Amino acid sequence: MLSEKMLGLGKKRSAIREIFEYGKKRAAEIGADKIFDFSIGNPNVPAPEYLKRVLIALLENSDPACLHSYTSAQGDVGVRKIIANNIYERFGTEVTADNIYITSGAAAALTISIKAMTVPGDEFIVFAPYFPEYIVFVEAAGAKVVVIPPDTEDFQIDIESFEASINKNTKGVIINSPNNPSGVVYSVETINSVCGILSKKEKEFGHSIYLISDEPYRELVYDDIEVPYLMNYYNNTIVSYSYSKSLSIPGERIGYIAVSPKMENTDDMYAAICGAGRALGYVCAPSIFQQAIAKCIDQTSDISIYKKNRDILYEELTKLGYKCAKPDGAFYLFIKALEPNAEAFCTKARKHELLLVAGDGFGCPGYVRISYCVRTDQIEKSLPAFAKLAKEYQ
Amino acid sequence: MLSEKMLGLGKKRSAIREIFEYGKKRAAEIGADKIFDFSIGNPNVPAPEYLKRVLIALLENSDPACLHSYTSAQGDVGVRKIIANNIYERFGTEVTADNIYITSGAAAALTISIKAMTVPGDEFIVFAPYFPEYIVFVEAAGAKVVVIPPDTEDFQIDIESFEASINKNTKGVIINSPNNPSGVVYSVETINSVCGILSKKEKEFGHSIYLISDEPYRELVYDDIEVPYLMNYYNNTIVSYSYSKSLSIPGERIGYIAVSPKMENTDDMYAAICGAGRALGYVCAPSIFQQAIAKCIDQTSDISIYKKNRDILYEELTKLGYKCAKPDGAFYLFIKALEPNAEAFCTKARKHELLLVAGDGFGCPGYVRISYCVRTDQIEKSLPAFAKLAKEYQ
Repeated sequence: MLSEKMLGLGKKRSAIREIFEYGKKRAAEIGADKIFDFSIGNPNVPAPEYLKRVLIALLENSDPACLHSYTSAQGDVGVRKIIANNIYERFGTEVTADNIYITSGAAAALTISIKAMTVPGDEFIVFAPYFPEYIVFVEAAGAKVVVIPPDTEDFQIDIESFEASINKNTKGVIINSPNNPSGVVYSVETINSVCGILSKKEKEFGHSIYLISDEPYRELVYDDIEVPYLMNYYNNTIVSYSYSKSLSIPGERIGYIAVSPKMENTDDMYAAICGAGRALGYVCAPSIFQQAIAKCIDQTSDISIYKKNRDILYEELTKLGYKCAKPDGAFYLFIKALEPNAEAFCTKARKHELLLVAGDGFGCPGYVRISYCVRTDQIEKSLPAFAKLAKEYQ
Repeated sequence: MLSEKMLGLGKKRSAIREIFEYGKKRAAEIGADKIFDFSIGNPNVPAPEYLKRVLIALLENSDPACLHSYTSAQGDVGVRKIIANNIYERFGTEVTADNIYITSGAAAALTISIKAMTVPGDEFIVFAPYFPEYIVFVEAAGAKVVVIPPDTEDFQIDIESFEASINKNTKGVIINSPNNPSGVVYSVETINSVCGILSKKEKEFGHSIYLISDEPYRELVYDDIEVPYLMNYYNNTIVSYSYSKSLSIPGERIGYIAVSPKMENTDDMYAAICGAGRALGYVCAPSIFQQAIAKCIDQTSDISIYKKNRDILYEELTKLGYKCAKPDGAFYLFIKALEPNAEAFCTKARKHELLLVAGDGFGCPGYVRISYCVRTDQIEKSLPAFAKLAKEYQ
């Protein structure tokens, strides 16, 4: 008599969590330095010292009845102004505080946005490889997920397949760049193609199609790669942003939704987002972290550590014969398994104490994800294990 | 093409928020000490100094990559153990960490619990006067709300009406004690009647009926009043708890769900709650506040201030001829309007700079809510205004 769907979701642990739990057990058995756990996307680079000082100063100097008080549901207006100004300064997009809705992280930004726009029969398009929770979030809102198969050439988007998948029920498209799990940044060319098709299809079907740009990894990019700001390419855009990875505070749950001021029905969309946040029980985002991110708007953790990790892993693994698209961002490497069955490959890897995640759950069988948000010396120590694993297949 | 329901929820501002916004505007016009804003339930007593020291110590002494990390979705196991032990010590109920799911406040505890158990056609019973968001949360999960009319005699529960309202579709019952807006604590007698009927009806209809005990005001009780712990009265009980009012941190969003270990399908219910939390986008409750509440498990803000406020207001208003059930808890007084139309009464009150909330939104027309979580001197200053208002009706 419970919800079978919710029971199923609760009982079926995510594959990533399973491996992570195994890793903790194995570490206790053989020592943490002998197990190479590349399973989970939990930032290992600490939050900036500056953020700590900001939090302590807020606690020391604020009236606690104000600091810890309810904010308005959409977030403190002063903080929203700072976020809006920051978007304007960085991307030239004229958003205001009234386009910003502060959320408990990107997951909340997605569930709220999807709930706000979904009516029965709606479909949302996601591109493989995709973050597995997209499926959960879309289905929880009562909509259907349409998956575009991966373009394993360069992990951009299979544009023909995308165009063919849009129909009269298409309500939205979720884009994730830099991508989890591939680490690839979608190029300006890819984005232009996607947005061109969306505009065409909006006319063809006579209704809006919303582009949801999920950007938790926006600040984690290397080699001066530019991540296109989608509001500047397509009017019906919603940005889902998070400070989890950029400031290494994933447990604190702070991020935002930005609604393009150029959206046709931008005020209604914002109101529906307020309604959906209310319906899902999000009273407001954690109040002290609202104040803290406003004061850390230009800060990030030391991203250079991730770049170093990526450089070592990408160079050494490709030398060993592993194939992967060069990741320009996030902290993931998505390599081709050395046999067709990625699960079997991961099982073999585990014998060398390498904990990898099969791509099947990301909608991309035959590949495995390596989360390189781990200590650099652990990455260096893991290289002989990757070499032995490759040798097994020669 | 957006969700009409969400758009409606977002556009229809809550009556309380409207009055609160008016109060801020009016304060700017005539001075904050001349307007008596009793509209909103935002704790005015500051969080304990001890909590501040705990938070600073966590920031100073913890590894930030751990402190701000994702916890497991159900919350840090050490914190869950401390919560479970605390429940055992206080109420003798043998809950364990595996019965506790830490949430982003009581609102999340409710939306997650309701989502976990709801299947199409379900009904949830609420007792007027009720917290208005119950309607929003139940309907958002796709279930129907059944309202039991208020028992305005003593603001306990109209047991006959309750019994008559249970049918084969009844999935749950939401109880809120100490009650918002009446401030009344349901007596052991009331609770025994409710639970007896539920047990009888479970047998009659051959399925579980869940009792959701929403307890954000549990610690705010006066004069040694005991608030029955519902797990000890009824096996199919879920407790929704919040630290928002007890520690004066409503903006930080921290609370929990406790599932009775004696529930028939307790493990499945817990799993479905995990699934629902995931589906709604609640990745974990704010991590630093998980640690903080564990260290403040026996602390509250200075509740004596609310008692003092209650005593003054209750005594003086009843002297002036206002009628209300004596509130034993929370920080609300629910008085009978001096004319049948509570909205009209509130409009007249506003002329005396008294901002009250009509009971209509709480399912109890003809009454008004006074939130006395304001400075005691403001309460004292407001008494002549209440006197003038009463005089208008003589």
